[in-house]
Amino acid sequence: MKLLSFKLDGQVKFGPKVKKEEAVWDVLAIQEALQVFPSFPSTIIDGIALGFDFVEKTRKLVDAAQKSENAQQFKHTFNEIEWLAPIPRTPKNILCVGKNYDDHAKEMGADAAPEDIIVFTKAPTAIAADETTLPVHAEKTTMLDYEGELAVVIGKRGKDIPKGMAYDYVFGYTIANDITARDLQEKHKQFFLGKSLDSACPMGPYLVSKDEIPDPQVLSIVTKVNGEVRQNGSTKDMMFEVADLIAILSKYVTLEPGDIILTGTPAGVGKGMNPPTYLKAGDEVKISIEGIGTLANRFA
Amino acid sequence: MKLLSFKLDGQVKFGPKVKKEEAVWDVLAIQEALQVFPSFPSTIIDGIALGFDFVEKTRKLVDAAQKSENAQQFKHTFNEIEWLAPIPRTPKNILCVGKNYDDHAKEMGADAAPEDIIVFTKAPTAIAADETTLPVHAEKTTMLDYEGELAVVIGKRGKDIPKGMAYDYVFGYTIANDITARDLQEKHKQFFLGKSLDSACPMGPYLVSKDEIPDPQVLSIVTKVNGEVRQNGSTKDMMFEVADLIAILSKYVTLEPGDIILTGTPAGVGKGMNPPTYLKAGDEVKISIEGIGTLANRFA
Repeated sequence: MKLLSFKLDGQVKFGPKVKKEEAVWDVLAIQEALQVFPSFPSTIIDGIALGFDFVEKTRKLVDAAQKSENAQQFKHTFNEIEWLAPIPRTPKNILCVGKNYDDHAKEMGADAAPEDIIVFTKAPTAIAADETTLPVHAEKTTMLDYEGELAVVIGKRGKDIPKGMAYDYVFGYTIANDITARDLQEKHKQFFLGKSLDSACPMGPYLVSKDEIPDPQVLSIVTKVNGEVRQNGSTKDMMFEVADLIAILSKYVTLEPGDIILTGTPAGVGKGMNPPTYLKAGDEVKISIEGIGTLANRFA
Repeated sequence: MKLLSFKLDGQVKFGPKVKKEEAVWDVLAIQEALQVFPSFPSTIIDGIALGFDFVEKTRKLVDAAQKSENAQQFKHTFNEIEWLAPIPRTPKNILCVGKNYDDHAKEMGADAAPEDIIVFTKAPTAIAADETTLPVHAEKTTMLDYEGELAVVIGKRGKDIPKGMAYDYVFGYTIANDITARDLQEKHKQFFLGKSLDSACPMGPYLVSKDEIPDPQVLSIVTKVNGEVRQNGSTKDMMFEVADLIAILSKYVTLEPGDIILTGTPAGVGKGMNPPTYLKAGDEVKISIEGIGTLANRFA
Protein backbone atom coordinates (compact mmCIF):
# COMPACT_ATOMS: atom_id res chain seq x y z
CA MET A 1 0.00 0.00 0.00
CA LYS A 2 1.22 3.49 -0.88
CA LEU A 3 0.26 5.83 1.93
CA LEU A 4 0.59 9.58 1.97
CA SER A 5 0.09 12.35 4.51
CA PHE A 6 -1.63 15.57 3.53
CA LYS A 7 -3.39 18.65 4.78
CA LEU A 8 -7.01 19.36 3.88
CA ASP A 9 -9.00 22.24 5.34
CA GLY A 10 -6.18 22.83 7.83
CA GLN A 11 -6.29 19.26 9.16
CA VAL A 12 -3.41 16.79 8.97
CA LYS A 13 -4.70 13.58 7.35
CA PHE A 14 -3.38 10.43 5.73
CA GLY A 15 -4.61 7.74 3.39
CA PRO A 16 -3.74 5.39 0.56
CA LYS A 17 -3.17 6.54 -2.99
CA VAL A 18 -6.18 5.73 -5.18
CA LYS A 19 -5.09 3.02 -7.61
CA LYS A 20 -4.37 4.34 -11.12
CA GLU A 21 -5.51 7.84 -10.15
CA GLU A 22 -3.66 10.92 -8.96
CA ALA A 23 -5.78 11.00 -5.83
CA VAL A 24 -5.94 9.91 -2.19
CA TRP A 25 -8.62 8.26 -0.08
CA ASP A 26 -9.43 10.30 3.03
CA VAL A 27 -9.70 7.35 5.43
CA LEU A 28 -10.36 9.49 8.50
CA ALA A 29 -13.43 10.94 6.73
CA ILE A 30 -14.56 7.44 5.69
CA GLN A 31 -14.29 6.16 9.25
CA GLU A 32 -16.07 9.21 10.62
CA ALA A 33 -18.95 8.92 8.14
CA LEU A 34 -19.36 5.17 8.01
CA GLN A 35 -18.04 4.08 11.43
CA VAL A 36 -16.55 0.92 9.95
CA PHE A 37 -14.52 0.21 13.11
CA PRO A 38 -15.18 0.97 16.80
CA SER A 39 -11.98 3.03 16.59
CA PHE A 40 -9.33 3.93 14.05
CA PRO A 41 -6.00 5.71 14.61
CA SER A 42 -6.12 9.48 14.20
CA THR A 43 -2.46 9.90 13.21
CA ILE A 44 -0.28 7.99 10.78
CA ILE A 45 2.18 7.14 13.57
CA ASP A 46 -0.60 5.61 15.68
CA GLY A 47 -1.58 3.76 12.52
CA ILE A 48 1.77 2.23 11.65
CA ALA A 49 2.17 1.23 15.30
CA LEU A 50 -0.63 -1.27 14.57
CA GLY A 51 1.61 -3.01 12.04
CA PHE A 52 0.05 -4.75 9.06
CA ASP A 53 -3.35 -4.46 10.73
CA PHE A 54 -3.20 -0.79 9.73
CA VAL A 55 -2.88 -1.73 6.05
CA GLU A 56 -5.78 -4.17 6.33
CA LYS A 57 -8.04 -1.73 8.16
CA THR A 58 -7.21 0.99 5.65
CA ARG A 59 -8.17 -1.38 2.82
CA LYS A 60 -11.47 -2.15 4.52
CA LEU A 61 -12.21 1.56 4.84
CA VAL A 62 -11.57 2.02 1.12
CA ASP A 63 -13.82 -0.98 0.33
CA ALA A 64 -16.57 0.48 2.49
CA ALA A 65 -16.24 3.84 0.75
CA GLN A 66 -16.43 2.25 -2.69
CA LYS A 67 -19.61 0.42 -1.73
CA SER A 68 -21.19 3.56 -0.29
CA GLU A 69 -23.38 5.93 -2.29
CA ASN A 70 -20.95 8.80 -2.20
CA ALA A 71 -17.54 7.27 -2.81
CA GLN A 72 -16.40 10.45 -4.58
CA GLN A 73 -16.70 12.60 -1.47
CA PHE A 74 -13.94 10.56 0.21
CA LYS A 75 -11.50 10.96 -2.70
CA HIS A 76 -9.33 14.03 -3.23
CA THR A 77 -7.18 14.67 -6.25
CA PHE A 78 -3.55 15.58 -5.62
CA ASN A 79 -4.38 19.11 -6.72
CA GLU A 80 -6.87 19.54 -3.90
CA ILE A 81 -4.52 18.62 -1.08
CA GLU A 82 -1.37 20.01 0.46
CA TRP A 83 1.28 17.27 0.42
CA LEU A 84 3.17 16.52 3.60
CA ALA A 85 6.08 14.18 4.22
CA PRO A 86 4.66 10.68 4.85
CA ILE A 87 5.67 10.98 8.52
CA PRO A 88 5.23 14.73 9.02
CA ARG A 89 6.98 14.69 12.38
CA THR A 90 9.20 11.90 13.71
CA PRO A 91 9.22 11.13 17.47
CA LYS A 92 12.97 11.71 17.67
CA ASN A 93 15.53 13.16 15.29
CA ILE A 94 15.89 11.31 12.02
CA LEU A 95 18.59 8.63 12.41
CA CYS A 96 21.17 8.78 9.64
CA VAL A 97 24.01 6.52 8.63
CA GLY A 98 27.14 8.05 7.19
CA LYS A 99 29.35 6.59 4.44
CA ASN A 100 27.32 3.41 4.04
CA TYR A 101 28.24 2.93 0.38
CA ASP A 102 31.89 2.21 -0.39
CA ASP A 103 31.98 4.36 -3.55
CA HIS A 104 30.52 7.34 -1.69
CA ALA A 105 32.96 6.95 1.21
CA LYS A 106 35.79 7.09 -1.34
CA GLU A 107 34.46 10.16 -3.16
CA MET A 108 34.32 11.89 0.25
CA GLY A 109 38.05 11.29 0.68
CA ALA A 110 38.05 8.13 2.82
CA ASP A 111 40.13 5.08 1.85
CA ALA A 112 37.09 2.87 2.25
CA ALA A 113 33.76 2.70 4.03
CA PRO A 114 34.19 2.75 7.83
CA GLU A 115 34.40 -0.52 9.73
CA ASP A 116 32.01 0.75 12.39
CA ILE A 117 28.74 2.38 11.60
CA ILE A 118 28.68 6.21 11.70
CA VAL A 119 25.40 7.56 13.06
CA PHE A 120 24.28 11.16 13.21
CA THR A 121 20.88 12.82 13.31
CA LYS A 122 18.80 15.44 11.53
CA ALA A 123 16.33 17.62 13.46
CA PRO A 124 12.67 16.75 12.78
CA THR A 125 12.11 20.47 12.11
CA ALA A 126 14.00 19.79 8.84
CA ILE A 127 11.29 17.49 7.43
CA ALA A 128 9.72 18.76 4.19
CA ALA A 129 7.34 17.39 1.60
CA ASP A 130 7.64 16.11 -1.95
CA GLU A 131 7.09 18.65 -4.73
CA THR A 132 7.80 21.63 -2.47
CA THR A 133 10.27 24.40 -3.18
CA LEU A 134 13.14 24.43 -0.69
CA PRO A 135 15.41 27.31 0.33
CA VAL A 136 19.10 27.20 -0.65
CA HIS A 137 19.86 29.12 2.59
CA ALA A 138 22.38 31.29 0.73
CA GLU A 139 23.05 33.39 3.84
CA LYS A 140 24.00 30.29 5.86
CA THR A 141 25.84 28.00 3.46
CA THR A 142 27.52 28.13 0.08
CA MET A 143 27.90 24.36 -0.17
CA LEU A 144 24.41 22.85 -0.09
CA ASP A 145 24.45 19.28 -1.38
CA TYR A 146 21.94 16.50 -2.08
CA GLU A 147 22.10 12.86 -0.99
CA GLY A 148 19.46 10.45 -2.34
CA GLU A 149 18.65 7.76 0.23
CA LEU A 150 16.33 4.89 1.00
CA ALA A 151 14.46 5.73 4.23
CA VAL A 152 13.24 2.94 6.52
CA VAL A 153 10.16 3.70 8.63
CA ILE A 154 10.01 1.87 11.96
CA GLY A 155 6.60 0.49 12.96
CA LYS A 156 7.25 -1.08 16.34
CA ARG A 157 9.02 -0.10 19.54
CA GLY A 158 12.14 -2.17 20.14
CA LYS A 159 15.62 -2.43 21.59
CA ASP A 160 18.32 -5.08 21.24
CA ILE A 161 16.57 -6.33 18.10
CA PRO A 162 18.33 -9.40 16.66
CA LYS A 163 19.25 -9.04 12.99
CA GLY A 164 16.99 -11.97 12.12
CA MET A 165 14.00 -10.17 13.64
CA ALA A 166 14.77 -6.75 12.17
CA TYR A 167 12.04 -6.71 9.50
CA ASP A 168 9.39 -7.29 12.18
CA TYR A 169 10.14 -3.72 13.22
CA VAL A 170 9.90 -2.18 9.76
CA PHE A 171 6.58 -0.73 8.64
CA GLY A 172 7.74 0.40 5.24
CA TYR A 173 9.94 2.62 3.12
CA THR A 174 10.10 6.05 1.60
CA ILE A 175 12.67 8.24 -0.18
CA ALA A 176 14.70 10.97 1.52
CA ASN A 177 17.04 13.68 0.34
CA ASP A 178 19.61 14.04 3.13
CA ILE A 179 20.39 17.64 2.24
CA THR A 180 23.72 18.71 3.71
CA ALA A 181 25.53 22.01 4.13
CA ARG A 182 29.07 20.70 3.54
CA ASP A 183 30.73 23.83 4.94
CA LEU A 184 28.80 23.60 8.21
CA GLN A 185 29.29 19.84 8.39
CA GLU A 186 33.04 20.38 8.28
CA LYS A 187 33.26 23.54 10.36
CA HIS A 188 31.31 22.15 13.31
CA LYS A 189 32.98 18.68 13.30
CA GLN A 190 29.87 16.81 14.41
CA PHE A 191 27.45 16.58 11.47
CA PHE A 192 24.22 17.65 13.22
CA LEU A 193 24.15 21.37 12.39
CA GLY A 194 25.13 20.94 8.75
CA LYS A 195 22.39 18.33 8.36
CA SER A 196 19.54 20.12 10.14
CA LEU A 197 18.72 23.33 8.31
CA ASP A 198 14.98 23.87 7.88
CA SER A 199 13.68 21.81 4.92
CA ALA A 200 16.93 19.80 4.73
CA CYS A 201 15.02 16.53 4.93
CA PRO A 202 12.38 16.28 2.20
CA MET A 203 10.77 12.84 2.17
CA GLY A 204 8.14 11.12 0.11
CA PRO A 205 6.13 10.89 -1.97
CA TYR A 206 4.75 7.70 -0.41
CA LEU A 207 5.25 5.52 2.60
CA VAL A 208 5.21 2.12 0.91
CA SER A 209 4.30 -0.73 3.27
CA LYS A 210 6.92 -3.47 3.39
CA ASP A 211 4.71 -6.11 1.74
CA GLU A 212 5.26 -4.26 -1.55
CA ILE A 213 9.06 -4.29 -1.17
CA PRO A 214 10.04 -7.89 -0.43
CA ASP A 215 13.77 -7.12 -0.58
CA PRO A 216 14.98 -3.58 0.15
CA GLN A 217 18.55 -4.55 -0.81
CA VAL A 218 17.95 -4.82 -4.57
CA LEU A 219 16.48 -1.40 -5.36
CA SER A 220 17.92 0.96 -7.93
CA ILE A 221 18.38 4.50 -6.62
CA VAL A 222 18.83 7.32 -9.12
CA THR A 223 19.29 11.03 -8.41
CA LYS A 224 18.97 13.60 -11.17
CA VAL A 225 19.82 17.29 -10.92
CA ASN A 226 18.12 19.34 -13.63
CA GLY A 227 17.59 16.11 -15.54
CA GLU A 228 21.25 14.99 -15.41
CA VAL A 229 21.90 11.65 -13.73
CA ARG A 230 24.23 12.26 -10.76
CA GLN A 231 23.71 9.19 -8.60
CA ASN A 232 22.98 5.82 -10.15
CA GLY A 233 23.32 3.19 -7.47
CA SER A 234 21.67 0.18 -5.96
CA THR A 235 20.80 -0.58 -2.35
CA LYS A 236 22.66 -3.88 -2.85
CA ASP A 237 25.87 -1.90 -2.34
CA MET A 238 25.10 -0.82 1.23
CA MET A 239 27.91 -1.82 3.61
CA PHE A 240 25.50 -2.18 6.54
CA GLU A 241 22.20 -3.53 5.24
CA VAL A 242 18.79 -2.48 6.57
CA ALA A 243 18.66 -5.43 8.98
CA ASP A 244 22.21 -4.64 10.24
CA LEU A 245 21.28 -1.02 10.80
CA ILE A 246 18.22 -1.94 12.87
CA ALA A 247 20.20 -4.46 14.93
CA ILE A 248 23.10 -2.07 15.61
CA LEU A 249 21.01 1.06 16.23
CA SER A 250 18.59 -0.73 18.54
CA LYS A 251 21.48 -2.10 20.57
CA TYR A 252 22.14 1.46 21.74
CA VAL A 253 18.93 3.44 21.12
CA THR A 254 15.31 2.41 21.69
CA LEU A 255 13.47 2.57 18.36
CA GLU A 256 9.88 3.79 18.26
CA PRO A 257 7.01 3.77 15.73
CA GLY A 258 7.55 6.64 13.32
CA ASP A 259 11.32 6.70 13.72
CA ILE A 260 13.07 6.95 10.39
CA ILE A 261 16.48 5.58 9.43
CA LEU A 262 18.24 7.13 6.44
CA THR A 263 20.43 4.37 5.07
CA GLY A 264 23.21 6.38 3.43
CA THR A 265 23.82 7.61 -0.09
CA PRO A 266 25.67 6.11 -3.07
CA ALA A 267 28.40 7.97 -4.96
CA GLY A 268 27.60 11.01 -7.05
CA VAL A 269 26.98 13.85 -4.61
CA GLY A 270 27.91 17.40 -5.60
CA LYS A 271 30.96 17.46 -3.32
CA GLY A 272 32.38 14.44 -5.16
CA MET A 273 32.26 16.13 -8.57
CA ASN A 274 35.26 17.73 -10.21
CA PRO A 275 34.98 20.58 -9.52
CA PRO A 276 32.53 20.23 -6.59
CA THR A 277 29.15 21.54 -7.69
CA TYR A 278 26.62 22.66 -5.12
CA LEU A 279 22.89 23.38 -5.28
CA LYS A 280 21.75 26.79 -6.43
CA ALA A 281 18.43 28.55 -6.80
CA GLY A 282 16.50 27.14 -9.75
CA ASP A 283 17.92 23.62 -9.46
CA GLU A 284 15.58 20.66 -9.40
CA VAL A 285 16.55 17.41 -7.65
CA LYS A 286 14.66 14.20 -8.38
CA ILE A 287 15.39 11.00 -6.50
CA SER A 288 13.81 7.79 -7.76
CA ILE A 289 13.82 4.47 -5.93
CA GLU A 290 12.38 1.35 -7.50
CA GLY A 291 8.99 0.44 -6.08
CA ILE A 292 8.56 3.71 -4.19
CA GLY A 293 8.44 6.50 -6.76
CA THR A 294 10.16 9.84 -7.24
CA LEU A 295 10.85 12.57 -4.68
CA ALA A 296 11.13 15.91 -6.50
CA ASN A 297 12.09 19.31 -5.08
CA ARG A 298 13.02 22.58 -6.66
CA PHE A 299 15.35 25.04 -4.91
CA ALA A 300 14.88 28.79 -4.61
CA MET B 1 9.41 28.95 40.56
CA LYS B 2 10.71 25.41 40.92
CA LEU B 3 8.56 23.14 38.76
CA LEU B 4 8.64 19.37 38.64
CA SER B 5 7.04 16.66 36.57
CA PHE B 6 5.70 13.53 38.19
CA LYS B 7 3.41 10.56 37.82
CA LEU B 8 0.45 10.03 40.11
CA ASP B 9 -2.10 7.26 39.62
CA GLY B 10 -0.59 6.56 36.22
CA GLN B 11 -1.06 10.13 35.00
CA VAL B 12 1.78 12.45 33.96
CA LYS B 13 1.43 15.71 35.93
CA PHE B 14 3.46 18.76 36.85
CA GLY B 15 3.43 21.49 39.44
CA PRO B 16 5.50 23.77 41.65
CA LYS B 17 7.40 22.55 44.68
CA VAL B 18 5.60 23.51 47.90
CA LYS B 19 7.72 26.12 49.65
CA LYS B 20 9.75 24.73 52.56
CA GLU B 21 8.13 21.31 52.16
CA GLU B 22 9.17 18.14 50.37
CA ALA B 23 5.96 18.19 48.38
CA VAL B 24 4.39 19.34 45.11
CA TRP B 25 1.16 21.14 44.24
CA ASP B 26 -0.94 19.18 41.77
CA VAL B 27 -2.01 22.16 39.66
CA LEU B 28 -3.99 20.08 37.15
CA ALA B 29 -6.14 18.78 40.02
CA ILE B 30 -6.56 22.31 41.39
CA GLN B 31 -7.69 23.61 38.01
CA GLU B 32 -10.04 20.67 37.53
CA ALA B 33 -11.64 21.09 40.96
CA LEU B 34 -11.77 24.86 41.22
CA GLN B 35 -11.91 25.91 37.54
CA VAL B 36 -9.79 28.98 38.23
CA PHE B 37 -9.20 29.62 34.51
CA PRO B 38 -11.32 28.93 31.43
CA SER B 39 -8.43 26.72 30.35
CA PHE B 40 -5.01 25.65 31.60
CA PRO B 41 -2.31 23.71 29.74
CA SER B 42 -2.44 19.95 30.21
CA THR B 43 1.27 19.33 29.63
CA ILE B 44 4.36 21.10 30.94
CA ILE B 45 5.49 21.86 27.38
CA ASP B 46 2.18 23.55 26.55
CA GLY B 47 2.67 25.40 29.82
CA ILE B 48 6.16 26.75 29.25
CA ALA B 49 5.09 27.77 25.73
CA LEU B 50 2.96 30.41 27.51
CA GLY B 51 6.13 32.00 28.89
CA PHE B 52 6.00 33.78 32.24
CA ASP B 53 2.20 33.69 32.10
CA PHE B 54 2.56 30.00 32.98
CA VAL B 55 4.40 30.89 36.20
CA GLU B 56 1.77 33.47 37.11
CA LYS B 57 -1.16 31.17 36.38
CA THR B 58 0.48 28.38 38.37
CA ARG B 59 0.88 30.77 41.32
CA LYS B 60 -2.78 31.72 41.09
CA LEU B 61 -3.78 28.07 41.16
CA VAL B 62 -1.70 27.53 44.30
CA ASP B 63 -3.28 30.63 45.90
CA ALA B 64 -6.74 29.34 45.07
CA ALA B 65 -5.89 25.94 46.55
CA GLN B 66 -4.58 27.51 49.75
CA LYS B 67 -7.79 29.50 50.15
CA SER B 68 -9.96 26.47 49.52
CA GLU B 69 -11.26 24.19 52.26
CA ASN B 70 -9.23 21.19 51.22
CA ALA B 71 -5.79 22.54 50.38
CA GLN B 72 -4.20 19.30 51.57
CA GLN B 73 -5.84 17.21 48.88
CA PHE B 74 -3.92 19.12 46.20
CA LYS B 75 -0.54 18.57 47.85
CA HIS B 76 1.51 15.40 47.49
CA THR B 77 4.67 14.60 49.37
CA PHE B 78 7.67 13.53 47.33
CA ASN B 79 7.19 10.01 48.72
CA GLU B 80 3.75 9.74 47.16
CA ILE B 81 4.78 10.58 43.61
CA GLU B 82 6.95 9.04 40.94
CA TRP B 83 9.52 11.64 39.87
CA LEU B 84 10.00 12.33 36.18
CA ALA B 85 12.51 14.53 34.40
CA PRO B 86 11.13 18.11 34.38
CA ILE B 87 10.54 17.78 30.61
CA PRO B 88 9.76 14.06 30.38
CA ARG B 89 9.98 14.07 26.58
CA THR B 90 11.61 16.74 24.45
CA PRO B 91 10.14 17.54 21.00
CA LYS B 92 13.44 16.77 19.29
CA ASN B 93 16.68 15.18 20.44
CA ILE B 94 18.42 16.97 23.26
CA LEU B 95 20.86 19.51 21.78
CA CYS B 96 24.35 19.20 23.26
CA VAL B 97 27.45 21.31 23.00
CA GLY B 98 30.83 19.60 23.07
CA LYS B 99 34.02 20.90 24.66
CA ASN B 100 32.50 24.18 25.82
CA TYR B 101 34.86 24.57 28.78
CA ASP B 102 38.54 25.11 28.00
CA ASP B 103 39.78 22.92 30.88
CA HIS B 104 37.54 20.02 29.80
CA ALA B 105 38.61 20.31 26.14
CA LYS B 106 42.22 20.01 27.33
CA GLU B 107 41.59 16.99 29.56
CA MET B 108 39.98 15.31 26.51
CA GLY B 109 43.24 15.74 24.61
CA ALA B 110 42.55 18.89 22.61
CA ASP B 111 44.99 21.81 22.62
CA ALA B 112 42.16 24.17 23.48
CA ALA B 113 38.42 24.56 23.20
CA PRO B 114 37.26 24.53 19.56
CA GLU B 115 36.84 27.80 17.70
CA ASP B 116 33.53 26.68 16.25
CA ILE B 117 30.76 25.21 18.32
CA ILE B 118 30.48 21.40 18.29
CA VAL B 119 26.87 20.24 18.40
CA PHE B 120 25.59 16.69 18.75
CA THR B 121 22.38 15.21 20.08
CA LYS B 122 21.07 12.69 22.57
CA ALA B 123 17.92 10.67 21.84
CA PRO B 124 14.91 11.72 23.93
CA THR B 125 14.47 8.02 24.81
CA ALA B 126 17.56 8.57 27.04
CA ILE B 127 15.77 10.99 29.38
CA ALA B 128 15.61 9.77 32.99
CA ALA B 129 14.55 11.22 36.33
CA ASP B 130 16.34 12.45 39.43
CA GLU B 131 16.83 9.91 42.21
CA THR B 132 16.40 6.93 39.90
CA THR B 133 18.81 4.02 39.57
CA LEU B 134 20.41 3.88 36.14
CA PRO B 135 21.92 0.89 34.31
CA VAL B 136 25.69 0.79 33.72
CA HIS B 137 24.97 -1.13 30.46
CA ALA B 138 27.91 -3.44 31.18
CA GLU B 139 27.17 -5.53 28.07
CA LYS B 140 27.36 -2.46 25.80
CA THR B 141 30.12 -0.31 27.23
CA THR B 142 33.03 -0.56 29.64
CA MET B 143 33.66 3.18 29.67
CA LEU B 144 30.52 4.87 30.98
CA ASP B 145 31.28 8.42 32.12
CA TYR B 146 29.41 11.32 33.74
CA GLU B 147 29.29 14.97 32.64
CA GLY B 148 27.56 17.49 34.91
CA GLU B 149 25.91 20.25 32.86
CA LEU B 150 23.63 23.25 33.06
CA ALA B 151 20.56 22.54 30.88
CA VAL B 152 18.67 25.40 29.26
CA VAL B 153 14.97 24.83 28.60
CA ILE B 154 13.57 26.70 25.60
CA GLY B 155 10.13 28.27 26.05
CA LYS B 156 9.42 29.83 22.69
CA ARG B 157 9.69 28.79 19.05
CA GLY B 158 12.38 30.72 17.21
CA LYS B 159 14.98 30.81 14.47
CA ASP B 160 17.73 33.31 13.68
CA ILE B 161 17.47 34.63 17.23
CA PRO B 162 19.83 37.59 17.79
CA LYS B 163 22.13 37.13 20.78
CA GLY B 164 20.59 40.16 22.46
CA MET B 165 17.14 38.54 22.31
CA ALA B 166 18.27 35.06 23.38
CA TYR B 167 16.85 35.15 26.91
CA ASP B 168 13.39 35.89 25.54
CA TYR B 169 13.45 32.28 24.32
CA VAL B 170 14.58 30.73 27.60
CA PHE B 171 11.92 29.45 30.00
CA GLY B 172 14.31 28.22 32.64
CA TYR B 173 17.05 25.86 33.69
CA THR B 174 17.66 22.42 35.07
CA ILE B 175 20.61 20.08 35.67
CA ALA B 176 21.63 17.26 33.33
CA ASN B 177 24.10 14.43 33.48
CA ASP B 178 25.29 13.96 29.89
CA ILE B 179 26.19 10.31 30.43
CA THR B 180 28.56 9.09 27.76
CA ALA B 181 29.88 5.70 26.66
CA ARG B 182 33.41 6.82 25.76
CA ASP B 183 34.21 3.63 23.83
CA LEU B 184 31.12 3.99 21.63
CA GLN B 185 31.69 7.72 21.23
CA GLU B 186 35.13 6.98 19.80
CA LYS B 187 34.33 3.84 17.85
CA HIS B 188 31.41 5.36 15.94
CA LYS B 189 33.13 8.73 15.23
CA GLN B 190 29.94 10.78 15.46
CA PHE B 191 28.94 11.10 19.13
CA PHE B 192 25.22 10.22 18.85
CA LEU B 193 25.30 6.50 19.67
CA GLY B 194 27.70 6.85 22.61
CA LYS B 195 25.49 9.58 24.05
CA SER B 196 22.08 7.96 23.59
CA LEU B 197 21.90 4.77 25.64
CA ASP B 198 18.64 4.43 27.55
CA SER B 199 18.77 6.53 30.76
CA ALA B 200 21.90 8.36 29.60
CA CYS B 201 20.25 11.72 30.15
CA PRO B 202 18.96 12.09 33.70
CA MET B 203 17.68 15.61 34.34
CA GLY B 204 16.20 17.43 37.29
CA PRO B 205 15.25 17.75 40.01
CA TYR B 206 13.51 21.00 39.10
CA LEU B 207 12.85 23.20 36.12
CA VAL B 208 13.67 26.59 37.64
CA SER B 209 12.03 29.50 35.84
CA LYS B 210 14.52 32.10 34.62
CA ASP B 211 13.31 34.84 37.00
CA GLU B 212 15.05 32.92 39.80
CA ILE B 213 18.36 32.77 37.91
CA PRO B 214 19.13 36.30 36.80
CA ASP B 215 22.55 35.35 35.42
CA PRO B 216 23.19 31.75 34.31
CA GLN B 217 26.88 32.55 33.73
CA VAL B 218 27.87 32.81 37.40
CA LEU B 219 26.69 29.45 38.75
CA SER B 220 28.93 26.99 40.54
CA ILE B 221 28.63 23.43 39.21
CA VAL B 222 29.91 20.58 41.33
CA THR B 223 29.86 16.86 40.53
CA LYS B 224 30.54 14.28 43.21
CA VAL B 225 31.02 10.55 42.69
CA ASN B 226 30.48 8.57 45.88
CA GLY B 227 30.93 11.80 47.79
CA GLU B 228 34.28 12.71 46.18
CA VAL B 229 34.35 16.04 44.33
CA ARG B 230 35.24 15.34 40.69
CA GLN B 231 34.06 18.45 38.88
CA ASN B 232 34.19 21.84 40.56
CA GLY B 233 33.54 24.49 37.94
CA SER B 234 31.59 27.60 37.19
CA THR B 235 29.36 28.44 34.25
CA LYS B 236 31.41 31.63 33.92
CA ASP B 237 34.03 29.48 32.17
CA MET B 238 31.84 28.49 29.23
CA MET B 239 33.47 29.37 25.90
CA PHE B 240 30.10 29.88 24.20
CA GLU B 241 27.69 31.38 26.72
CA VAL B 242 23.98 30.53 26.89
CA ALA B 243 23.04 33.51 24.71
CA ASP B 244 25.72 32.56 22.13
CA LEU B 245 24.45 28.98 22.04
CA ILE B 246 20.88 30.09 21.39
CA ALA B 247 21.98 32.53 18.67
CA ILE B 248 24.22 29.99 16.91
CA LEU B 249 21.90 26.99 17.22
CA SER B 250 18.85 28.93 16.07
CA LYS B 251 20.71 30.15 13.03
CA TYR B 252 20.67 26.58 11.74
CA VAL B 253 17.89 24.77 13.62
CA THR B 254 14.41 25.99 14.55
CA LEU B 255 14.09 25.89 18.35
CA GLU B 256 10.78 24.85 19.92
CA PRO B 257 9.19 25.00 23.40
CA GLY B 258 10.52 22.08 25.41
CA ASP B 259 13.79 21.84 23.51
CA ILE B 260 16.74 21.46 25.86
CA ILE B 261 20.30 22.64 25.32
CA LEU B 262 23.05 20.98 27.36
CA THR B 263 25.75 23.60 27.68
CA GLY B 264 28.84 21.43 28.08
CA THR B 265 30.77 20.12 31.04
CA PRO B 266 33.75 21.51 33.01
CA ALA B 267 36.91 19.48 33.65
CA GLY B 268 36.88 16.45 35.91
CA VAL B 269 35.17 13.68 33.97
CA GLY B 270 36.23 10.07 34.52
CA LYS B 271 38.10 9.88 31.21
CA GLY B 272 40.29 12.81 32.28
CA MET B 273 41.47 11.09 35.46
CA ASN B 274 44.81 9.33 35.78
CA PRO B 275 44.14 6.50 35.27
CA PRO B 276 40.73 7.00 33.60
CA THR B 277 38.02 5.86 35.99
CA TYR B 278 34.60 4.90 34.69
CA LEU B 279 31.24 4.37 36.36
CA LYS B 280 30.48 0.99 37.92
CA ALA B 281 27.52 -0.59 39.61
CA GLY B 282 27.01 0.90 43.07
CA ASP B 283 28.38 4.34 42.19
CA GLU B 284 26.36 7.41 43.06
CA VAL B 285 26.71 10.63 41.02
CA LYS B 286 25.45 13.93 42.42
CA ILE B 287 25.52 17.10 40.37
CA SER B 288 24.75 20.38 42.13
CA ILE B 289 24.19 23.72 40.42
CA GLU B 290 23.68 26.89 42.40
CA GLY B 291 20.05 27.98 42.47
CA ILE B 292 18.73 24.76 40.97
CA GLY B 293 19.52 21.95 43.37
CA THR B 294 21.11 18.53 43.16
CA LEU B 295 20.56 15.79 40.59
CA ALA B 296 21.38 12.42 42.16
CA ASN B 297 21.51 9.00 40.52
CA ARG B 298 22.83 5.66 41.61
CA PHE B 299 24.11 3.10 39.10
CA ALA B 300 23.36 -0.62 39.06
